[in-house]
Amino acid sequence: MHDISVIEKLASTTDSRIIQIILDGVGDIYNNNTPSPLEKAQTPNLDKLARASSLGLADPIFPGITPGSGPGHLSLFGYDPLKFNIGRGVLEALGIDLKLRDNGMYARGNFCTLDKNNVILDRRAGRISTDINRTVCEKINAGLKNFKEIPAKVYPVKEHRFVVEFLGEELVPNILDADAQKVGLPYKYAEADTDTAIKTTEKVNKFIDHVLEILKGDEVNGILLRGFAKDPGLDNMEKRFSLRPAAVAQYPMYRGLASLVGMTLLNVGEKMEDIPAALERNWASDHDYYFLHIKKTDSYGEDGNYDGKVHVIEEFDKILPRILALNPDALLITGDHSTPCMMKAHSWHPVPLLLHSEFARTDDLPFTEKNCKNGSLSRINALYEIPLLLAHSGKLAKYGA
Amino acid sequence: MHDISVIEKLASTTDSRIIQIILDGVGDIYNNNTPSPLEKAQTPNLDKLARASSLGLADPIFPGITPGSGPGHLSLFGYDPLKFNIGRGVLEALGIDLKLRDNGMYARGNFCTLDKNNVILDRRAGRISTDINRTVCEKINAGLKNFKEIPAKVYPVKEHRFVVEFLGEELVPNILDADAQKVGLPYKYAEADTDTAIKTTEKVNKFIDHVLEILKGDEVNGILLRGFAKDPGLDNMEKRFSLRPAAVAQYPMYRGLASLVGMTLLNVGEKMEDIPAALERNWASDHDYYFLHIKKTDSYGEDGNYDGKVHVIEEFDKILPRILALNPDALLITGDHSTPCMMKAHSWHPVPLLLHSEFARTDDLPFTEKNCKNGSLSRINALYEIPLLLAHSGKLAKYGA
Repeated sequence: MHDISVIEKLASTTDSRIIQIILDGVGDIYNNNTPSPLEKAQTPNLDKLARASSLGLADPIFPGITPGSGPGHLSLFGYDPLKFNIGRGVLEALGIDLKLRDNGMYARGNFCTLDKNNVILDRRAGRISTDINRTVCEKINAGLKNFKEIPAKVYPVKEHRFVVEFLGEELVPNILDADAQKVGLPYKYAEADTDTAIKTTEKVNKFIDHVLEILKGDEVNGILLRGFAKDPGLDNMEKRFSLRPAAVAQYPMYRGLASLVGMTLLNVGEKMEDIPAALERNWASDHDYYFLHIKKTDSYGEDGNYDGKVHVIEEFDKILPRILALNPDALLITGDHSTPCMMKAHSWHPVPLLLHSEFARTDDLPFTEKNCKNGSLSRINALYEIPLLLAHSGKLAKYGA
Repeated sequence: MHDISVIEKLASTTDSRIIQIILDGVGDIYNNNTPSPLEKAQTPNLDKLARASSLGLADPIFPGITPGSGPGHLSLFGYDPLKFNIGRGVLEALGIDLKLRDNGMYARGNFCTLDKNNVILDRRAGRISTDINRTVCEKINAGLKNFKEIPAKVYPVKEHRFVVEFLGEELVPNILDADAQKVGLPYKYAEADTDTAIKTTEKVNKFIDHVLEILKGDEVNGILLRGFAKDPGLDNMEKRFSLRPAAVAQYPMYRGLASLVGMTLLNVGEKMEDIPAALERNWASDHDYYFLHIKKTDSYGEDGNYDGKVHVIEEFDKILPRILALNPDALLITGDHSTPCMMKAHSWHPVPLLLHSEFARTDDLPFTEKNCKNGSLSRINALYEIPLLLAHSGKLAKYGA
C-alpha cells in the first residue's frame, strides 16, 4: 500500500488548472516483431507535446496486477485501490446519474434469454436496443408494485444492461453473482458470501423470482445480477486534495467513478471532438481539475483491433491542440491500465505516462511505451499522479520546515 | 514493506509452467575500467534470449540493503524478508533434509580447534573432511545420552559444519551466537538477547560445556554455534500463489529455503549439466513452478575470482538451450543479490533481471547490469517477481471490475 494521506495537509486551492487525460487501456505490448499502437500511430501533436514533457511508466496497483476499470481509475484519482474496493453495481448506478442512497444496495443487471427449463440461451438477450430495454424496465417496475419483500426498482442503462436499486436499512451486499456466466448452464440464483448476508440474499432471490414471473412468455424473459454493492463512502477530492474537480467522460462507468470521488459531471456529446468542446465550455468555471476520459482505445484493444486502436490514438492527436490552447498549468496523459491487442483484455503491463508543465524535466522523446521506460519519471505507482499534478501546478506546500 | 497478499485471491492453478533461475550473487560492479562478469562473459544463448525478453533491476530488500542468502531468496519466492526472518540454524537443518519439529530449536555449528586455555586456533578445525565430521558427530551423540539438561542431537553437514537440534516445549531462540568470530580470541558462550531467552541460553551453554568435555583431548575439540532459530511457520507457495512448486538446487541451504516455502526437492547431481537433466526428468509432473539454483557465481564472487565467475556464467549459457527447449510459459533469470568480485562479499547493488514470455515487452538488449537499468521492467522490488511470473503465465485474475 502507498499512503499519500499527508497530501491533505499540504494541498491548497489556487487558480492554477490541471487536466488529466485517460486514454483508456492505451498501454500495449511491443516486441521484436510488432510496434505498439502508440509507436505505430502518426501523432505529430502528441509527439511535440511529449518532447517538452516528462515521460514515465505507471503501475495502477503493483507490478503483475491487472486492474479492472474501477481500481485503475481510483488509483489515477489518488485513491489506493487496495484500500478502497468499489462494487460494480455502485459504479453502474453512478454511471446513469443515480444518486446513491445510504440505505441503497445496487447490482448490475443483464437482460437475458432463458429456455422453458431456465437454461441460459443468450446472456445478452440478443443485445436488445436501449429503447426495448426501457420498455422492459417499465414493465418490471409496474409489476414490482405488488412485491412486498424488498423495495426495488430497475433502471435502464445501454442495450441489454440495467441497474437494480434495492432499499432497506439492513441490507448486506456480500452476495455472490446471480449469473452462471455461460450459455447452456441452468439459471443460478444469488448466494450469500457471508452468513451476515443470508437474509438479504433470500430477499434478492425472491425479487428474481418475481421478475421472472413478470417477464414470463416475453422475448426478454430473464435477468442476471452481478456486483452487489453499497456506497463505499469515499472522501471527495476536494477534502483529500483541495481540488474542485470536473469530469468530461462519455461512458456511464467512468462518469460513475468520477462522481464517487466528488467530481462534477459535465455534459458532453458522444464524439471525440465533443470532448474538447465540453472542456472549452466549462473552462471559465471554478473547476481547477478536469478528468478527460477517452474510451475507445480500450474497446479496440479488447476487440484485438490493432488498426482501430491506432486510429483512435490518431483521432485523439487531432483534438489535442484544442486542449493545449487552454494552457493548463499541469497536464497529464496516461491510461488506467494496458489493454494489449494481442491479449484482447486488460493487462498488468505498466502504463505510459506524460506530464507537461513549465516545471517538468523534459525528455525530448515521442510518447511511446519504450520511450516512457527511459523517461524522467521512471516507473512509479499511478497513485502518485495526483501529487505530481498538484506539485507541478503549484498547489502543494513544502513538507516540514 | 510491500504487501502482495492480494495475490492469494487472484491466483489460480493452471497448466502453464514457470521457471525461475537464480544465478546466486550474479550481479556485479561495472565501472569505467572493468566490465562486469556478465558483460565479459561470452553468452550467445543468454544474449539471444535476453533480446526477446524484458530486462530490469531488482532490489531484494530496498536500495542500500545487502541481503543474506535467506532474505535474498525469500524475496524472490514472494515472501517479504522484512516481515519473515528465518534463522540460519533452521536453514541449515532443512538443507540436510531434517524435518523441523514444532518443539525444535536449531543452530548452525562449526567444529573448531581450541588451545588449552579455550582460545580459538582455527574456526574450521582445519576444514576436516565430511567423513571425520560424521565420526565426531557420532561420538558427541553417544556422549549426549547421559546429558539431561536439554534433549539435543548433532547432525553432520559438509566439511566442518553441523547442525544441532534442541528439543523442548519452552525453548526461546532469541540467543546471540556462541562464536567469538575471530581466531586468537577466547571462547565465547551463548548470550540471551532477551530476558525470555535466559533459561534456554543457560541450557545451551551447559550443552556446550558437555560437548567440550566429550571432545577433550581430540584433534577436533570445540564447537561454535550460530543462528539459533525455530520454524517460522510460513504459508507455503501453494496457499499464497496457487503454485505447485519444485526446486532443483544442489546446495543444502537453498534446498532448505525451498523446502521452507513448500517446494518439493528434486534429486539433482552436483554438476552444471545435472541441473537441466533434473528439470527434464521432472517436467512431465504436476509441478508448475521450478526454482533452479546455480551456486558458483556467488562462490567465485566471494573468492574475488573474476575469471571464475565469468566462466560459471559461460557454463550456464551452455545449459540454457536445454531449459528453453522445455518451452516454459514464463521464465525469469536473476540473482538473489549481487556479489561483486572486487568486494569479495554480498552487496546491495540491485540485481539484473530477465523475464521471458510471449507477453513480455522486449528490449532487444543483451543481459548485462547496464542494459537492465534501461529495461522495460525498470527497477522493482524482487518481491514482485512471482506476481510478474504469475501474470505472464496467465495464472492471475483481474483485480476488481
